[in-house]
Amino acid sequence: MRTTVGIIGAGPAGLLLARLLHRAGIDSVVLESRDRSYVEQRQRAGILEQGTVDVLRAAGAGERMEREGLRHDGIELRYDRKRHRVDFPALTGGRSVMVYAQTEVCKDLIALQLKEGGPLLFEAEALAVEGADGDSPSIRFRHEGREDVLECAYVVGCDGFWGVSRKAIPEALTRVFERTYPFGWLGILADVPPSHDELVYARHDRGFALLSMRSPSVSRLYLQVPEGTDAQSWGDERIWDELERRFETDDDWRLQRGPITQKSVTPMRSYVHEPMRHGRLFLAGDAAHIVPPTGAKGLNLAVGDVVTFARALTHEKETGSTELLDTYSETCLARVWQAERFSYDMTTLLHRAPDATPFEDRLQVARLERIASSEAAETDLAEGYTGFPFA
Amino acid sequence: MRTTVGIIGAGPAGLLLARLLHRAGIDSVVLESRDRSYVEQRQRAGILEQGTVDVLRAAGAGERMEREGLRHDGIELRYDRKRHRVDFPALTGGRSVMVYAQTEVCKDLIALQLKEGGPLLFEAEALAVEGADGDSPSIRFRHEGREDVLECAYVVGCDGFWGVSRKAIPEALTRVFERTYPFGWLGILADVPPSHDELVYARHDRGFALLSMRSPSVSRLYLQVPEGTDAQSWGDERIWDELERRFETDDDWRLQRGPITQKSVTPMRSYVHEPMRHGRLFLAGDAAHIVPPTGAKGLNLAVGDVVTFARALTHEKETGSTELLDTYSETCLARVWQAERFSYDMTTLLHRAPDATPFEDRLQVARLERIASSEAAETDLAEGYTGFPFA
Repeated sequence: MRTTVGIIGAGPAGLLLARLLHRAGIDSVVLESRDRSYVEQRQRAGILEQGTVDVLRAAGAGERMEREGLRHDGIELRYDRKRHRVDFPALTGGRSVMVYAQTEVCKDLIALQLKEGGPLLFEAEALAVEGADGDSPSIRFRHEGREDVLECAYVVGCDGFWGVSRKAIPEALTRVFERTYPFGWLGILADVPPSHDELVYARHDRGFALLSMRSPSVSRLYLQVPEGTDAQSWGDERIWDELERRFETDDDWRLQRGPITQKSVTPMRSYVHEPMRHGRLFLAGDAAHIVPPTGAKGLNLAVGDVVTFARALTHEKETGSTELLDTYSETCLARVWQAERFSYDMTTLLHRAPDATPFEDRLQVARLERIASSEAAETDLAEGYTGFPFA
Repeated sequence: MRTTVGIIGAGPAGLLLARLLHRAGIDSVVLESRDRSYVEQRQRAGILEQGTVDVLRAAGAGERMEREGLRHDGIELRYDRKRHRVDFPALTGGRSVMVYAQTEVCKDLIALQLKEGGPLLFEAEALAVEGADGDSPSIRFRHEGREDVLECAYVVGCDGFWGVSRKAIPEALTRVFERTYPFGWLGILADVPPSHDELVYARHDRGFALLSMRSPSVSRLYLQVPEGTDAQSWGDERIWDELERRFETDDDWRLQRGPITQKSVTPMRSYVHEPMRHGRLFLAGDAAHIVPPTGAKGLNLAVGDVVTFARALTHEKETGSTELLDTYSETCLARVWQAERFSYDMTTLLHRAPDATPFEDRLQVARLERIASSEAAETDLAEGYTGFPFA
């Protein structure tokens, strides 16, 4: 089996890359270890940056997103029982974000790929990337009970943090940057209209809470919990009581409760693998970097990576020059580190560390007061939230 | 002995307060435990915010500052051998700072006070503030070998971190917020023209360095050193070599060496005492709060406190209302916490912690890149550096 670009992983990065390459007349094959229904159901991020929305539209994959996605022009910061709205378009010259679940993006891209695109193999488990530093890299994989090899001109690893592609970069050439956090997010889906029409990020002495939504009738809510918490150890009543406390305000705002349909705990991690390219192997998305979920950068970073790769390969095809492919890692990493910084800052701004000192508590409130009172500080946040420009 | 406002401490806070009260027709007495020459020689801060400059001018204490002070319209950030200038007036609508040593401010204010103002007693050691929560507080002090009592309508403690005034606030009413840092600043004065005409803040893997100046012919330079370092353990040659390394650039900039005339190590601490008022006792400056020196907020915070007190007392005199005196602590603390935040952020942006991880190193560089590439982030810094408005 032979293709120009072998793509490992049919998450949003791999699927969007296949779509972008297809539109540029470049053939690819996508290998995904899970089955289709798994990929179409896993709950992940739900906030698309302005740039991501623009890319999906331009790729002809924005039709249902336009119809069902919720455009958000701001977020609310909540602290000390106070509420402060950050107005994105006013601060950034018109930029906003879109609430549209990653799982819906994947469904749309899978449907398009199966209809118009190149091969997309489910239950095709990549075992190793071979010959990355030569002229003809390949992916060894298992599909329908037997091993096969996909010969490629380029391999793009979109196979997430636990995937095999990163392992093909020799350790001696690698630097890893990492930070873990002593807390996680207990996330729930609930069949109740969201209690606020925009996301609410709450800083509270009891810990962070986030009010989000999947649709006008489904709420998505999160609570900071200690690292290693078992989601099932939290009863529904306890979750709602705790959310209510952390979202408390001085006005008559009320949290609406409803049946909880899903509970899970997300660990928090910052991780960057340098470089993101080795020879003809390119890493994209979680395969190369992880951000904590605060600020919703993960999916958008993956989109930035594959846009950069697609542009670089198109440039090579059109001009014969590999210059953009050669600088892929540096180009992506500049944006990655800004997103890492932003995600770290949003996390430390809002979460209460188990060993937080009274000084650090006051510092958090002073930061929030600064954002609420300085257009410069607020713009810095709004620019970061709506997204750093794709290269 | 009797006065309206008893002021403990003839640092810049106490001296400026006496001056502001004198101009408002309110009498005061200043008690200073040291002798005049000590006060006029101790080396402290050297950067006056725009607001501080304006206050000194309005108080008729700006004449020599206008003549000898160096107006600075920016600073340079240096990292990864790169140089980035932050242009204050362009980013803040015309604000700048003044390089004029605290010790010179003190000389000017002492001369004015002795010529035009009320009593200023040197070698008058305050022993205790008494009756702060009653109608007639007093200061017990020792002067010329005997104890005396200064009866006051108000007492303002400008006696620094180690002074007695803070002790008059009952512990049960007090909250203390504190952070220490595992490093300090080795500071030198050198008889050599500054190698750059604006301050240079350098982030380096070997630690922070700061190039500053006292005058066109005297350089003031600092090196981050481990906590508890003995200044005398660093030979002159070693200091210059280390400064040279940390200020390295890709262009032909060169550090000029000269005779070192003074060496000392400053510890780094963040500290806030709440409240800043108890009955008729008011704390100002270092008596209530300490910031690490990065960003030069200490002196300017003290100025903000005494301006707030002078306005509040003038308001009481003119209207009979104590509302501004009653809210003195809250008013000052809002500004204090912004300065604490700014000083903490500047410190962690530029200093290398002994246990810094590679992730944290990259985060620092990403922050500096953000400041260098986003007008919003740069404006946030410039606003903080040139100063938060006095209440």
